[in-house]
Amino acid sequence: MTTRALGSELLEPFDCNPLTRVVYGPGSILQLGKLARDYGASRVVLFTDSGILATGHIDRCLQSLQAAGVATTLFSGVHPNPSSDDVDQGVQVAREAQADFLIAVGGGSSIDCAKGVNFVLTGGGTIHDYWGVGKARGPMLPLIVAPTTAGTGSEAQSYALISDAKTHVKMACGDQRASCKVAILDPELTVSMPRSVTAATGIDALSHAIESHVTTRRNSVSQSFSRRAFRLLSQALPIVLDEPAHLPARGAALLGAHWAGAAIENSMLGATHALANPLTATYGITHGVAIGIMLPHVIRYNEPAVSGLYAELAATLPCDAKSDRAQGREKQGGEKLKAGEILAGFVEQVVRQAGQPTNLLELGVEESRLNELAQAAAVQWTGTFNPRPVDVNSLEELYRCALSH
Amino acid sequence: MTTRALGSELLEPFDCNPLTRVVYGPGSILQLGKLARDYGASRVVLFTDSGILATGHIDRCLQSLQAAGVATTLFSGVHPNPSSDDVDQGVQVAREAQADFLIAVGGGSSIDCAKGVNFVLTGGGTIHDYWGVGKARGPMLPLIVAPTTAGTGSEAQSYALISDAKTHVKMACGDQRASCKVAILDPELTVSMPRSVTAATGIDALSHAIESHVTTRRNSVSQSFSRRAFRLLSQALPIVLDEPAHLPARGAALLGAHWAGAAIENSMLGATHALANPLTATYGITHGVAIGIMLPHVIRYNEPAVSGLYAELAATLPCDAKSDRAQGREKQGGEKLKAGEILAGFVEQVVRQAGQPTNLLELGVEESRLNELAQAAAVQWTGTFNPRPVDVNSLEELYRCALSH
Repeated sequence: MTTRALGSELLEPFDCNPLTRVVYGPGSILQLGKLARDYGASRVVLFTDSGILATGHIDRCLQSLQAAGVATTLFSGVHPNPSSDDVDQGVQVAREAQADFLIAVGGGSSIDCAKGVNFVLTGGGTIHDYWGVGKARGPMLPLIVAPTTAGTGSEAQSYALISDAKTHVKMACGDQRASCKVAILDPELTVSMPRSVTAATGIDALSHAIESHVTTRRNSVSQSFSRRAFRLLSQALPIVLDEPAHLPARGAALLGAHWAGAAIENSMLGATHALANPLTATYGITHGVAIGIMLPHVIRYNEPAVSGLYAELAATLPCDAKSDRAQGREKQGGEKLKAGEILAGFVEQVVRQAGQPTNLLELGVEESRLNELAQAAAVQWTGTFNPRPVDVNSLEELYRCALSH
Repeated sequence: MTTRALGSELLEPFDCNPLTRVVYGPGSILQLGKLARDYGASRVVLFTDSGILATGHIDRCLQSLQAAGVATTLFSGVHPNPSSDDVDQGVQVAREAQADFLIAVGGGSSIDCAKGVNFVLTGGGTIHDYWGVGKARGPMLPLIVAPTTAGTGSEAQSYALISDAKTHVKMACGDQRASCKVAILDPELTVSMPRSVTAATGIDALSHAIESHVTTRRNSVSQSFSRRAFRLLSQALPIVLDEPAHLPARGAALLGAHWAGAAIENSMLGATHALANPLTATYGITHGVAIGIMLPHVIRYNEPAVSGLYAELAATLPCDAKSDRAQGREKQGGEKLKAGEILAGFVEQVVRQAGQPTNLLELGVEESRLNELAQAAAVQWTGTFNPRPVDVNSLEELYRCALSH
């Protein structure tokens, strides 16, 4: 008896433990106080950064918490790409406040800082002790977060990314107990993002959807999150870049970034992130800008290995979301474009619409340093999950493709 | 400024609190003992039914529990469509065993019985006290379940369906605290199902995917579960009906039934279930058989209201899964079939392949009683979530369509 095939679904064994309640909707931030009280908060420390403080979002949070009878201490000193210093300061504030509950309202930095503080506050030592997986030392405080960007998806993850304040080495500290109790996804919080932040964080989220869909760790759960994320983000990003106040599109982008984060939690990332990190470390290039340049080249590189999976994503693109080049070729009745080419073209179109650089020369990257960058990329953890193997040579070639594309 | 539309995704507010860890894979049942111990079990009652007891699955469970040092009492007296009597007996057994943990291995009946026992064991009174939503009276015991059918998806839900032993009225008792800690999805457990059970439970699961996708309560989360479930079930059912030992297809069916259950938890069901219940109550027709007859007619009835949503599902059908009729029409270049017609035709094809009756006359339903049945269907809760409104007249017409189709 021959056995029939089952489509592209990868039915590998998995163990998926969803730990975060998702409360989605415009105005849902007003539930913050009630939710915190329901989960037992009496003395809260709220983490945010100075940019968010200026938007007025935090006032609404504080009012909601006050109305619910929850005492709140504000820590608004979180820096971008938070360091061990941010964590140490946060721990001190939380200790003085005798906090029994943590809240973060902000981008991935505020959320990661609150997670980092939670490790040290409940387990002692320094954040360095928690670098790795499953190193929490007992129960942690409940954490509620509300992202103000549609990017990292940190609110869906058990990892905190914290840099060593001296060496700038990024430490990924992950433990299921560090996951958020509740993620409040309120699209109104994301409307105030500057356009460049909407672009860089949105393109990062898009890369999470595309990379997580094809990693060697993918499974039925992660692929479902990836597909859902890609559909939402590919529809929403072209709109929010044109119409920043389009609330349904802001909602779709925020949900898309969240599900992409949930996909990563179940499947890891790929070579695009391995290539982007050395660009940020060496040249200070914004993560989402580096991602926008490298992602199309990685897609084309991966195409022979995962064309069927790319086709699944490309099939959900609305016709007007395909790049002009792809549409033009199809109209002329030319050869059908490969799915990877359609996807790569779509990403390039979003990057152009965002006004981000499309090649590395524009950003001052020197051809003479490509090998050095490739060596740094080759030791990035995420590269090991790329569906087509990468090494120093192929990574250098990918940088070269991106140099003056 | 005009605002652009965002596809078919319904971006209504939602509040989704996933409570169940999913451990999937062939042989995953062997993790039962370790998982129970990890979650603190020392004295377990394991619920199952006599049919499952005969398969040998329970022996493997008991060995795994023993190896983990967990004392286990077996309660194998669960009846199909469990009643308040089953619950009362289960409570007595659990009290005598001083149980601190519950496990269910079986179909929806065993799982629902364990949930029902959990309410009464931890809160006192009788199961009638818990009819409705959120009536648990404090913490409940941790529950791990392993379904042996790919049907109800009860392992993904916070509801127990228990019949009153005297009146046979079905009581839905729901509380988030009744959700399972872990669902072990092991396809090997489902291979032993008789073909008729594979068919009836599989068609029920398929109806969960299709109905939940279009209810008035649908949202971005439930639709994602529905789509995922439909894709898996539509690929797997035609295979498992032909090749019962096809493990990847068994796995896909089991996962599909699980995600369909998760979709219901977030979106409720529709008119097919409102129509099926009176057929079971009045004529004793197996639930999945009644569903298989009524579902195609409800899809055609709903088509004008939700054609776009049906098209999303129909688009994922592989060509050879479309009904011969649909393929024939398309080949002849005739008018394009509506998505609802393609879906309905696919369901009819699966029902025929399963060898289940395709109309009500075959089952002895009398035309003279259709109005009485329709009146019973009109007061079913699930009918209120159907995307196109139904009343006694339209429900009677749907029965009439199904009489000799």
